[in-house]
Order: sequence, then C-alpha cells, then structure tokens
Amino acid sequence: MAQAAIRPCRAEDCRQVVRLIRELAEFENLSDQVKISDQEFCEDGFGKDPFYKCLVAEVPPECCSQDGHTIVGYGLYFFTYSTWKGRNVYMEDLYVMPEFRGKGIGKKLMSAIAQIGLEQGCTQMRFAALDWNRSAIAFYLRQGAVDLTATEGWHCFRFEADAMQGLVVGEPGSHQGSTPV
Amino acid sequence: MAQAAIRPCRAEDCRQVVRLIRELAEFENLSDQVKISDQEFCEDGFGKDPFYKCLVAEVPPECCSQDGHTIVGYGLYFFTYSTWKGRNVYMEDLYVMPEFRGKGIGKKLMSAIAQIGLEQGCTQMRFAALDWNRSAIAFYLRQGAVDLTATEGWHCFRFEADAMQGLVVGEPGSHQGSTPV
Repeated sequence: MAQAAIRPCRAEDCRQVVRLIRELAEFENLSDQVKISDQEFCEDGFGKDPFYKCLVAEVPPECCSQDGHTIVGYGLYFFTYSTWKGRNVYMEDLYVMPEFRGKGIGKKLMSAIAQIGLEQGCTQMRFAALDWNRSAIAFYLRQGAVDLTATEGWHCFRFEADAMQGLVVGEPGSHQGSTPV
Repeated sequence: MAQAAIRPCRAEDCRQVVRLIRELAEFENLSDQVKISDQEFCEDGFGKDPFYKCLVAEVPPECCSQDGHTIVGYGLYFFTYSTWKGRNVYMEDLYVMPEFRGKGIGKKLMSAIAQIGLEQGCTQMRFAALDWNRSAIAFYLRQGAVDLTATEGWHCFRFEADAMQGLVVGEPGSHQGSTPV
C-alpha cells in the first residue's frame, strides 16, 4: 500500500481541509459549533497575516478514499507562548479519515508538527483532547504527552463573543476582588 | 486612590513583567517550571517576529507597591485559531500583585484584551485556570466564561521537548492505530 505524503496545505486544498474539519467535529459530537466557511478558512490561512499553519496527508489517486478524496488527514497548528518556558507550538487539530487510520498517518502528521516546532525553538507542543476519546488519549500518552488537567488541574475556559463584548462595556469598578486577578 | 493605567508593555518593562511572572508561578505552586530569563522574554516579545503581546497595569509613583514597584499587574496574550469559529485571542497570563487586588485592575486588563481581540475579528477569548484557584474561577464565570473542561470534557496536554524529539525520531510504522488519529 502506498504511503501518505505529508506536505504543507496550499490555498487550493482549503475546501478539502474544511471537509475534514467538519468530519472531525462530527466525530467529537460538536458539529453545531462549526461556523467557518471555506472562504474564511482560506483567507485566515493564506491572507497577508496568516492565523494558522496546516499540513495535509495526501495519498496517490489510486489509493483515494471510497468517495474519491486524496487528502485524507490534516494537522493544523500555530505558535503560542509560555511565560515559563518560551516558545510553544500548539496542535489545534489532528485528524485522519476513519478508513485511513491504523497506518501511522496521524503519527506522521504529529511528528512533522513537532519537528517544525523544534526547528522554530519551541520547547513544548500543546494540544487539547476530549476526555471520552480514550483511544486518542492513550495514543498521545504512549507518545509521551502529559495530561495537564489530570496532573496539575488545568481547566480550559472560553469567553464567547457576547461575553467578550460584556467585558468591554462592563463597569470595571463592579469587580468584587478575587485571587489572583 | 489613583487608578491604575493599562498600557502596552514596552521593552524596558520586560524585567518588571518577568518579576510578576515569577510571582504568579509561585502563587500557582509551579515556580520550578519557570525557565525564562529577562533577556529571552524581551527577545521573544520585542524581536522582529514577536511571539506574544502584553499589557501592563501601572500606578503613579506615589501609589507604588511596598517594595517600590509601579508596574503592579500584567496580561499576556496572543492570537490563535479555531477551525470551528476562526480567529481567537488567547489570554495566557493575567496577574495583579496581592496588595493591588480588589480594585478592578484584573478586570480592566481582561477587558482591554477582549477589546483588542474584538477589534482583530476574534470570536472567542480562551484561557486556562487551575481547578483549585476557586476565587479566580468564580470571577471568570461571573464575567461569562465557560469552563470547557467541566462542560465538554476538554483536557489540556503537553509534550515536553524530549517527547517532541521522540516523536521526530520515532518509527511512524510503530503506531498501533487509534481514533481519531
């Protein structure tokens, strides 16, 4: 069986990657949260001030998926920063189509992101996973990842746009005082 | 009492911000993880390819801290990306010195980061908090934040540099197959 090639995503691949983004969200039972359009995704990654970087896994045409796709996985990442340890690479998404799993494609994508991070002077690679996705978590732990929620108690939080707007218009003086903020 | 002014961090403030970074890590009982030097921090934020952005809270000299400091808090952030919702702003650190808490400085810093995020087209502001830091979490929830670990089951993970190196040199074929990677 032909190997999947890992290469940077190009603008013309965006539609295929958005297809995979939707598949991943469906797998995570969170597809109602997907609001991005093909066009926005392309502008955000390939405009003059890109917000992300992306690798794709591509198989030869003769090995395409049942529905004719040759881009069968992707890893999306960007650079972040730890005030404790400096530069980080953040793996936002890692996904391989079900029919192409078990062939090491996910690990190749993750390895390629780690290599890019090391070349850029990053000392950590961070990511998030859903607690019920036990086979993925077992895979990550086998590769040496640390679950910071389990070991140190970190929780992920989010303000949606309306809450951000509330923060901006709120009365700063109404804050009741708390630690450490 | 004079208000704290919120303004962008300048290169000459880096030493003061690193002082606050160490204070925050001590509060979090994780100060052994702080490896950054003043110089690295300054290069990473004020070199030709900055990895973060930072706001500081500054009080007038007559309101300085007991040990003579006028920079009494900081909020460090960068832009990230959600493949579901597009541009995000990530609040990596938010800290106010204990003797200046309860005056709304933390909320002013957070509000300023939210405003910058909205101006840049971000639809979310994300951050992480330690589960035992209940007063901080209560503060964030009052402002409209959602705890994604509690509500959706997201866990934070990290590969350290040695594990990243292991990913790079590992045999891709040794992967046992897992979902969704």
